[in-house]
Amino acid sequence: MPSVDLNADLGEGFGVWELGDDDAMLAIVTSANLACGFHAGNPVRLARTCESAVQSGVQIGAQVGYFDLAGFGRRYIDVEPAELTADIIYQIGALEALAKAAGSAVGYVKPHGALYNTIVTDRAQARAVARAVRAVDPGLPVLGLAGSVFFEEAAELGLRTVAEAFADRAYEPDGQLVSRRRSGAVLHDPVQIAERVAMMVTTGAVTAVDGTTITVEVESVCVHGDSPGAVTIAAAVRDRLLADGIELTSFT
Amino acid sequence: MPSVDLNADLGEGFGVWELGDDDAMLAIVTSANLACGFHAGNPVRLARTCESAVQSGVQIGAQVGYFDLAGFGRRYIDVEPAELTADIIYQIGALEALAKAAGSAVGYVKPHGALYNTIVTDRAQARAVARAVRAVDPGLPVLGLAGSVFFEEAAELGLRTVAEAFADRAYEPDGQLVSRRRSGAVLHDPVQIAERVAMMVTTGAVTAVDGTTITVEVESVCVHGDSPGAVTIAAAVRDRLLADGIELTSFT
Amino acid sequence: MPSVDLNADLGEGFGVWELGDDDAMLAIVTSANLACGFHAGNPVRLARTCESAVQSGVQIGAQVGYFDLAGFGRRYIDVEPAELTADIIYQIGALEALAKAAGSAVGYVKPHGALYNTIVTDRAQARAVARAVRAVDPGLPVLGLAGSVFFEEAAELGLRTVAEAFADRAYEPDGQLVSRRRSGAVLHDPVQIAERVAMMVTTGAVTAVDGTTITVEVESVCVHGDSPGAVTIAAAVRDRLLADGIELTSFT
Amino acid sequence: MPSVDLNADLGEGFGVWELGDDDAMLAIVTSANLACGFHAGNPVRLARTCESAVQSGVQIGAQVGYFDLAGFGRRYIDVEPAELTADIIYQIGALEALAKAAGSAVGYVKPHGALYNTIVTDRAQARAVARAVRAVDPGLPVLGLAGSVFFEEAAELGLRTVAEAFADRAYEPDGQLVSRRRSGAVLHDPVQIAERVAMMVTTGAVTAVDGTTITVEVESVCVHGDSPGAVTIAAAVRDRLLADGIELTSFT
Repeated sequence: MPSVDLNADLGEGFGVWELGDDDAMLAIVTSANLACGFHAGNPVRLARTCESAVQSGVQIGAQVGYFDLAGFGRRYIDVEPAELTADIIYQIGALEALAKAAGSAVGYVKPHGALYNTIVTDRAQARAVARAVRAVDPGLPVLGLAGSVFFEEAAELGLRTVAEAFADRAYEPDGQLVSRRRSGAVLHDPVQIAERVAMMVTTGAVTAVDGTTITVEVESVCVHGDSPGAVTIAAAVRDRLLADGIELTSFT
Repeated sequence: MPSVDLNADLGEGFGVWELGDDDAMLAIVTSANLACGFHAGNPVRLARTCESAVQSGVQIGAQVGYFDLAGFGRRYIDVEPAELTADIIYQIGALEALAKAAGSAVGYVKPHGALYNTIVTDRAQARAVARAVRAVDPGLPVLGLAGSVFFEEAAELGLRTVAEAFADRAYEPDGQLVSRRRSGAVLHDPVQIAERVAMMVTTGAVTAVDGTTITVEVESVCVHGDSPGAVTIAAAVRDRLLADGIELTSFT
Repeated sequence: MPSVDLNADLGEGFGVWELGDDDAMLAIVTSANLACGFHAGNPVRLARTCESAVQSGVQIGAQVGYFDLAGFGRRYIDVEPAELTADIIYQIGALEALAKAAGSAVGYVKPHGALYNTIVTDRAQARAVARAVRAVDPGLPVLGLAGSVFFEEAAELGLRTVAEAFADRAYEPDGQLVSRRRSGAVLHDPVQIAERVAMMVTTGAVTAVDGTTITVEVESVCVHGDSPGAVTIAAAVRDRLLADGIELTSFT
Repeated sequence: MPSVDLNADLGEGFGVWELGDDDAMLAIVTSANLACGFHAGNPVRLARTCESAVQSGVQIGAQVGYFDLAGFGRRYIDVEPAELTADIIYQIGALEALAKAAGSAVGYVKPHGALYNTIVTDRAQARAVARAVRAVDPGLPVLGLAGSVFFEEAAELGLRTVAEAFADRAYEPDGQLVSRRRSGAVLHDPVQIAERVAMMVTTGAVTAVDGTTITVEVESVCVHGDSPGAVTIAAAVRDRLLADGIELTSFT
C-alpha cells in the first residue's frame, strides 16, 4: 500500500494572536511543523500545540526560521553562518524540551519562510542549517525541497533528506515553484488541488505552469494551515488520497 | 577531603554587548550558570560560552529568567504559572541543545534575578519553575536558596535541591540576604569575602549583619561575574578555599 | 444637545497577526486608542491604522503600555518609575510621528492593560505616566478611570483628565469594575449594554452588581474592539445613543 | 573662519549593557547620532543621553536602523519599503519625544549600520528612508555619504543632504570606503587620523588606499564612539582641527 506524509505549518500564533486553526489541521495532517519562537510561537502556545499533536498522533517537527517576529520570518536576513547555526540549534532544543514535556520529541526539522527560500540556493546558510541539525542529532531528518543546495549540504553531512511537494503551488517547467508575485502561483480550488496531489503522489509527476508534465519527488505533501480555506483544502487532499488507497503516515 | 562548588552567572552578554569576563571566570568557577536568551545571552554567544566551559571543565547550568531583555530579568513580572512553566522548559531545552553541540549537557537549573527572588516566597511561580525542571528531566538538580518556597516545591516534586551561599552578600539574622537597597548589603573587600566563604564552608556558619552567628547551608558558593572586581574576588575565594584544603568541584 | 465620546482599543495586531476589525470599529467610534508597539502594533500597521482613522474622522490617542509583546501588556511589570516615564515618552513620540505622517496628531493618552489597572492604585507608576505625558505635551489629556491615583497625579501636574465608563463591564457598589475573574464581570447582550450606556450618559448613574444605583462620571465610553461580537455591541451602543439624541463626538 | 561638524554614534547601550563612553564623547563631538531603540538604545538610556547631550550643547540626531537588536542593525534585512518607511518614522518620532523632554529636538537623521550601507546603492530602501524623513519633517537634514543613491532620493524629495567623511577609514580611488574585510580598512593611529581629517577639511582631498589623491565632500566628520581608543582618537581629531583654526560646530 503506497503511503505519503501530509505536513503543515502550525503553532504560528504568538501571545494573544492566533493564526490558522491548529486543532482542525491536527485532525488532518500527519506531521506538524511547529514554529519555535523566532518567527512565531511563544512557549506556552507551543506547549499546548505539542500536547494537541500528541493527542492527535501527529509527528512534531521543528520549523526553524530567522529571528524576526515583526516580519514573521519572511524577510531575508544576512546572518553570519555561525550565528545562524546557533540560532537553529537553540530553536530545535527549545521545541525538543516542550515536545518531551508533552510526551513526544522533535522528529524532523523544516526551515521556514525566507530561510527556506534562501537555502535553496545560498550554500553558506544552507550549510549552517545542516550543521545545526547534525549538532543536535545526526538522526534528525530534514524536510525541504528536492534539488536544493540545502539538501546537498544536508546529505553531505549524513542527514536524511525528505522531499516535499506543495499542494497548492504552481510549478515552473524546471521544478521550481512559480513566484508568489505572479498570478496563478497559488491554487485555490480544493478539488483541483486534491487532484494534483493525487497525481503527484501516485505518478511522481505534475503538470507545470506551461502545460508540460514534470517529475516531482514527494515523500511529504505540504498543505497550508493559515490561508483562507486552508482546512477545507487540507481535508480535500486527505480525502482524495485515502479514496485512492494511499495511506497517510508520517515519514519518520 | 571537604569540597564545595563555586558558581557564577555567565553568558550574559547579548549581540555586540559584553557583560563580565567569562573566560577569566571560567578559569575559576566549577559551575557556570549560563543565561538562556530570555534575560540575556543570544544563541551564538551561548554556543561559544558552552564551548569555553567544556574546555575549562566547568559544569553548565541553565540560568532561567523572565522574558525581559530590557530589564535583564531583574523586574518582577506577573506571569501566569502555566506560561512560566513553558518559558522555563523552552529556555532549558534551548541551552541543552547548545551544550550538547559543545559536547556537554545542562547539569542543573538556577533561576535568575527577579525570578530567583520571587520564588523564595511566591508558591505559584515556585511550583511553575519546579514543574518545568521536572518536565525536562527529573534528574536535574536545582540551585537556589535553602529554606525557600522554591526548594519546598522542588523537593515535593522529587528534585534534588542544592543550597548556595553568597560570597559577597550580608545576611540578616534569619538567614535572608540583606536587601541591596540597604548600605552594607554587598561586600567588596576580597580578603574579607574570602574569609567569610572559608568560614561558611568549613563551619556552616556566618556572621550576620547584627553580629550574631547564624547557620548557613552551602553546597555551592555564588560569586558574581559582572561586578567591578568580580574576577579578583572570585580568585581570592578560590585561593583561600584551596589553601584551607577544600576541594573545588561541581556538585553534579 | 448632550454629547459623549466613544473610544476603543485599535491597532492591536502585530506583523502578520490581526486582532479585531479596525475598519469596522473606525466607522463607529470617535476616538481610537492606538497601540504604540510595546504591547502590540508594529509601525507599518500603525501607519495604516492612522490613515484609516484620519479618513474616518476619528481622533487618535496613544494607548501606552508595558514593554511586553508576549503578554500583550496584560502582566504587571515592576518597572522603575524613571524607566516607565521614558518608555511612555518613547511610545507617544513614535505614534505622534506616525499620526503626523497621516495628517493628524496624537490627541490624548490612555494607558493599557496591566498598566491601566496598576496606576489605579500605584502612585509611583501613576506619577511616572503623568510625568511622561506632561513632558511630551502638557496640553495632552489623559483618558482613564475617575477616582484613580493616576487621575490625582495627572491633575496635580496640570493635565486634563477625561473619565471613561465601560460599556460592557459590571460595576461594584464603590464604582470599581468587577474583577474579570468573577462571573458576570463582562456583559454580552448588545441591547442590555446599549441600555446601560444610555443610562450612564444621560443620568450619570448605573446599576451596580448588587442592584444599587451608583454615580459614574463619563466623558467617554469605552467599547471593546476585539471581543466576539465587538462590532455588533459597539454599533448597538452608537445607535442607541444617537436615538436618544446624544451627539457622538471626540472630547478633544 | 572655516568650520566643520564632528559626529559620533552614541546611546548604543541597551538595558544593563554599555557600549562606548557616551559622556567622554559628548565632551568632544558637536553632533550625536543617537540610537532609536531598533538596533540599540532603550528609552531610559536614550532619555539620559539626550539630557547629557543638551548639557554638553551637542546637537541630537536620530540614528535609525533595521529592527534587529541581536544583530545590532549590522545585518541586511529585506524589508518592504512601506514597512521600512513606517519603521523609520516610528524611530524618529520616539527619539524626538525624548529629545523634547530633555529640552531639545532631533536635528537630523543618519541611517545606521547595514541600512547605511544598503542605501548607498539600493534605491527602493533609500527612497523609503527619505520618505520617512520628509513625512516627519521636510526640514530635517540627512547625514550620509555623498554620491549615494540615498542622497539622490533625499535631494529629489527636497531634503538637505549633509556629506560626512570618515576619520578612521581608508578610501578607494573612487571615493568608496575600503571594505572592512580588507586589511588596512580601518586606521588606528590617532596622529595619522587627525592629520588626514585636517587635510580633508582644509583641502577637500584625501589620499586613497592606492596613494592617489581624491576629492572628498565633508560637512561633518564621523568619529567612532565604541572602538578601542575611540575617545583618544576623537580628541586628537578635535585638537588638531582647533589647532588648525577650524571651528567645530553643528551643521544645523
